[in-house]
Amino acid sequence: MTKSNPGNFFEDFAPGQRIAHATPRTLSEADAALNIALTGARHALFSADSFAQDCGLPGAPIDPLLVFHTVFGKTVPDISLNAVANLGYAEGRFLAPVYPGDTLSAASEVLGLKANSNGKTGVVTVRTTGFNQDDEPVLSYVRWVMVNKRDANAATTDSPPVTPKNVVPASELMLPPGLDFSNYDFALAGSPHAFEDYEIGEKIDHVDGMTVEEAEHQLATRLYQNTAKVHFDALAQKESRFGKRLIYGGVAISLARALSFNGLANAQLMLGVNGGRHVNPLFAGDTLYAWSEVLAKEDLGAAGALRLRLVAVKNQNAAAFPFKSDAGEYDPAVVLDFDYWAAIPKR
Amino acid sequence: MTKSNPGNFFEDFAPGQRIAHATPRTLSEADAALNIALTGARHALFSADSFAQDCGLPGAPIDPLLVFHTVFGKTVPDISLNAVANLGYAEGRFLAPVYPGDTLSAASEVLGLKANSNGKTGVVTVRTTGFNQDDEPVLSYVRWVMVNKRDANAATTDSPPVTPKNVVPASELMLPPGLDFSNYDFALAGSPHAFEDYEIGEKIDHVDGMTVEEAEHQLATRLYQNTAKVHFDALAQKESRFGKRLIYGGVAISLARALSFNGLANAQLMLGVNGGRHVNPLFAGDTLYAWSEVLAKEDLGAAGALRLRLVAVKNQNAAAFPFKSDAGEYDPAVVLDFDYWAAIPKR
Amino acid sequence: MTKSNPGNFFEDFAPGQRIAHATPRTLSEADAALNIALTGARHALFSADSFAQDCGLPGAPIDPLLVFHTVFGKTVPDISLNAVANLGYAEGRFLAPVYPGDTLSAASEVLGLKANSNGKTGVVTVRTTGFNQDDEPVLSYVRWVMVNKRDANAATTDSPPVTPKNVVPASELMLPPGLDFSNYDFALAGSPHAFEDYEIGEKIDHVDGMTVEEAEHQLATRLYQNTAKVHFDALAQKESRFGKRLIYGGVAISLARALSFNGLANAQLMLGVNGGRHVNPLFAGDTLYAWSEVLAKEDLGAAGALRLRLVAVKNQNAAAFPFKSDAGEYDPAVVLDFDYWAAIPKR
Repeated sequence: MTKSNPGNFFEDFAPGQRIAHATPRTLSEADAALNIALTGARHALFSADSFAQDCGLPGAPIDPLLVFHTVFGKTVPDISLNAVANLGYAEGRFLAPVYPGDTLSAASEVLGLKANSNGKTGVVTVRTTGFNQDDEPVLSYVRWVMVNKRDANAATTDSPPVTPKNVVPASELMLPPGLDFSNYDFALAGSPHAFEDYEIGEKIDHVDGMTVEEAEHQLATRLYQNTAKVHFDALAQKESRFGKRLIYGGVAISLARALSFNGLANAQLMLGVNGGRHVNPLFAGDTLYAWSEVLAKEDLGAAGALRLRLVAVKNQNAAAFPFKSDAGEYDPAVVLDFDYWAAIPKR
Repeated sequence: MTKSNPGNFFEDFAPGQRIAHATPRTLSEADAALNIALTGARHALFSADSFAQDCGLPGAPIDPLLVFHTVFGKTVPDISLNAVANLGYAEGRFLAPVYPGDTLSAASEVLGLKANSNGKTGVVTVRTTGFNQDDEPVLSYVRWVMVNKRDANAATTDSPPVTPKNVVPASELMLPPGLDFSNYDFALAGSPHAFEDYEIGEKIDHVDGMTVEEAEHQLATRLYQNTAKVHFDALAQKESRFGKRLIYGGVAISLARALSFNGLANAQLMLGVNGGRHVNPLFAGDTLYAWSEVLAKEDLGAAGALRLRLVAVKNQNAAAFPFKSDAGEYDPAVVLDFDYWAAIPKR
Repeated sequence: MTKSNPGNFFEDFAPGQRIAHATPRTLSEADAALNIALTGARHALFSADSFAQDCGLPGAPIDPLLVFHTVFGKTVPDISLNAVANLGYAEGRFLAPVYPGDTLSAASEVLGLKANSNGKTGVVTVRTTGFNQDDEPVLSYVRWVMVNKRDANAATTDSPPVTPKNVVPASELMLPPGLDFSNYDFALAGSPHAFEDYEIGEKIDHVDGMTVEEAEHQLATRLYQNTAKVHFDALAQKESRFGKRLIYGGVAISLARALSFNGLANAQLMLGVNGGRHVNPLFAGDTLYAWSEVLAKEDLGAAGALRLRLVAVKNQNAAAFPFKSDAGEYDPAVVLDFDYWAAIPKR
C-alpha cells in the first residue's frame, strides 16, 4: 500500500463529504513581513502596529489575503492536487481578524459535483472554512475547481446544481471588533480619498507594474504550504498544456491588490470576496498591472464598504482598462477578474 | 597584513585543533517561516504552536534541519571556504530542541587529516557541535570535506584514519523533553500512518517535484550565513569544473525532506543523522524528486523511531527508486543519499 | 479626477516644502532575518540577541542599513517615483537604535532645486528624517536625485545652491545608549582586528563575490516598500536607457556592506553616512565584489569610529581596488562609492 498521497480525483468526491485538511499553521510577524516582500503590499493597517492601534485594533492584523492563501493552501492536497484549472471563488467572508500568533486550520464540505462531457474531468464545488486556534471561523468561501478523473470510465453522478450568490450582502460583512476610523490619518495612509470620494462606476488605473519571477511565486506558494504540482515542477510541466510552471492564482490576486494601493490606499481591509476568476494563466516573466472599478458602496457604520472589481492585466499596462469584449469574452491580457468588498474610512 | 579571511587550506589544519566559529545567531519565528517558504516544509510539529503544544512541547520548535544548516553555516569560513567537495556527514545527533529566541553558536574539533595523492587537496574530518545561549549542546555531527591546499608543495602528515560509526545507536537518540504523542492528531498531521504501519524495506515514492531557482538557494544559504563561494559567485564559478553556481547540499537535504512529507507526514522530528552524501551536484533549474526506504525501526517509548534512507533524485521522478547500480555506483540522477532517524508517533 | 499617484515631477517641488511620507512600518525579527537572507549580513551585533546583550544593548538592534532602506523607501512615492537617477546622499546620521517592534515613519524637507539645461530634468535635494513610534528621530540624511519634469516647458526657479557637508563630524555621531564593548568577544565576532589595528589609508579586499538575481533585489526592494518603477517593471524598462530593470542602489550598499564583513567583521555599527554615490548601474546577473579603504579614525570613548570608503565593483573581483582614473573618472566596474562611519571596539 502506498503511503504517499496521489490526491483526490473527481470520482473520489461525494456531495456532503467533509474533509479536515492537514497542517495547522501559526502565522507570525514573519508571514506579515514576507507578505510585504513578496507582494509589495503597503496598506498601512497591515504594515504598522501603531497605525492599527490608532484604528482601535490591538496591533496590525494579518493581511486577509494572506489568511485566504494560507487556508486555501491547506485544501490543495485534498481538493485540487489533480486540478486542471481553478475556476472561481464566491461567497467569501472574513469572519474574524487574524493576528500574529494565531494558528489556522481548515475544513471543507463538498457542495456539488458536475462531470464534464469529455469524461476526463469534472467540476468540484466546496465550501471551505478557516478556523483559528479557538475554533472560531475566520474565513469562509465557496470554490469550484476542475479536477481530473483517475479513470475516464469511472461512473459519476452529478449533484444538484450549486449556484453561489453573486455578491455577499453588505449586512453579512464583518468589521474587526474595535475598528474605529475616527482618528484615521489619511496622510500616513498615503491618500486623501475617503469613502465619500469614490463614485460607483469610477475606474482607477493603478499605474505601476510588477514583473514576476519563478523564485518569487514559488516562495509565496510554499509559504502558503500550497503543494499544487503545476506551480513547482518545471519538468512535469514541460508535458503540460503550457509547457511551463503556472503561477498560483492567489499570487496574482495579492500582487494586483498590492498594486491597487496606488488609488485605493485607504481601502484597507478586505471584508468579502464576491467572486474571483483566473481567466488567463500567469507565468514567470510576465508583468502584471491592475485597475479597479467601484461597483457598489455601502455604509457599514464604523466604516464605508466599497465593492470593487479588481482586474489584473499582463504584459500591457492597464491605462485602457482592458476587460471584456462586447461579446462578453475576456481580453486575452486579463488574468484576473476579482470582485471584493473593502472597508474604507469615512470622513 | 590582510584583514580579510582567505579561509583555511588543507595544510592549515592540525589534528585535535579546536575552532570556535563566528557569528552567533538568534533564530526566530522568522527563520521558521522562511524555512517553510524556502523548502515547502509541512510537518505539523514545526508549523503550528498549537499542534506542538498538543504534543507536550512549549511551542513549535525550530526544524532540526534548520538548526543543522545554521550550525553548519558557521563552520564554513573556518572549515570549508576552500572546499572542493562536501563529502559526507555521520554521527549526527540532535541533543536538545531549539525554540524561537534561542541563539546558536558552533565549535569544531579536527578529528582527522588525509592528503590526496594528487598533492592538491586533502580530506579534513571534523566534529562540530552547536550550542544554545546556555552553552548546552543542541547538535553534534562529524563531517568530512575535501579542501584545497594553498601550496601543492606544502608538507602534510596524515592523522590516524578516522572511521565514524555507520549508524547512531537508538539508545543515543534524544527526544525533546516533554514530547508526548498520546493525543496526536493524525488527520491534522496529514497522514493516518503510524510507527506500526511502516515496514523495514518499505520504499516510498514522495511523488512531488520541486524545481530550484538561483534566488531560492542563495536566499536559503545566506539565511544560514553559509559563505561558501561556490554557491554565490557566478563569475568565479565560470572557471570551475561545473561552470556555474553549485547549490548548497543542505538545500537538497531540506527540499528532499520537505518532499518526503508526502508519505512520511508523521515522521515529525529528525533525531539523528547516520550518514549523508552529496553524490551528484545540484544546480539551479534542476527539478528535485525524492524517495525513502525504511532501514530500521526502534521503539523509543514516547515515540517510535524510523531509520530512513532519503534519496534525492534530479530531473527524473523517483517512481523507479533510482539508487545504485549492481556495481555499487550511484545512478547519475541521484543527488543525495541521506540516512537519518526520525521520531514518529505510535498508535 | 485620478486617484492614483503619478508621483511628483520636478516642477511640483518647492524649496522649504515639507512632505509627510506614507505607510508607517513596524520592523520585526522577520525583517532582521530577511535582511540576512537577502544580503548575507553576518555582523554579530545584528545576528544574536546574546551577543548584543553582552555589548550592553537590550537585544540585537535592526541593522542601520535596513532602517535606512525602510525610511528611504517611504520617500519614493513622493520624491523619486519619476527619478532618472539617484545621485547621492550625505549628512547621514543614525540618531537612535531601532529594535524589533519599533515602527518607522518618515518626513522630508525640500532643501534645493536645480533645473538641468536640457529642460527635461532637474535635481531635487531633500533632507529626510525617519522617526520611531515615539516621534524620536532615528535617522536623518540629505539626498539629491534627478527627477523628470512633467512638462519640459514648465517654468522653474532654482533655489540657492545646497552644499551638504563632505563628512559628518565625529562629534555628531551617536552611539546606541548602553553600548559597552569592554567584554567584546572577538572570536565570536569573527575577527581579531580592533580599532587600533586599522590604519588610515589601509585598503581591504573583501574577497567574496555575490551574483544578484531579479527575484532577490525585487524581494528586498519590496520589503523596504520602495515602489520605484525602474526596479520592478521589466516591460516598461524595455523602453528605458538600459532596456531592463535596474537594481535599487540600496541593495548594492547592503550587499557590499555584507561582503565587507570579510575584513571588517568588527566594524559593527554604521553610525553615519558621509556620502554615497551610485556611479554605475547594477543589473540582475551581475556579480558584486567590494573593497574598503580606511579614510579616518576617531576615538568616541565607548568605541572607536572608522571612516570607511566602501567601493562596490561589478563583474570583476576587487583585488586591484578599482576606483577612479587619474582624471578622476570612475572605473566602469565601480558601482558604488560609499563613505561612512562605523563603530568598532577598541582593545
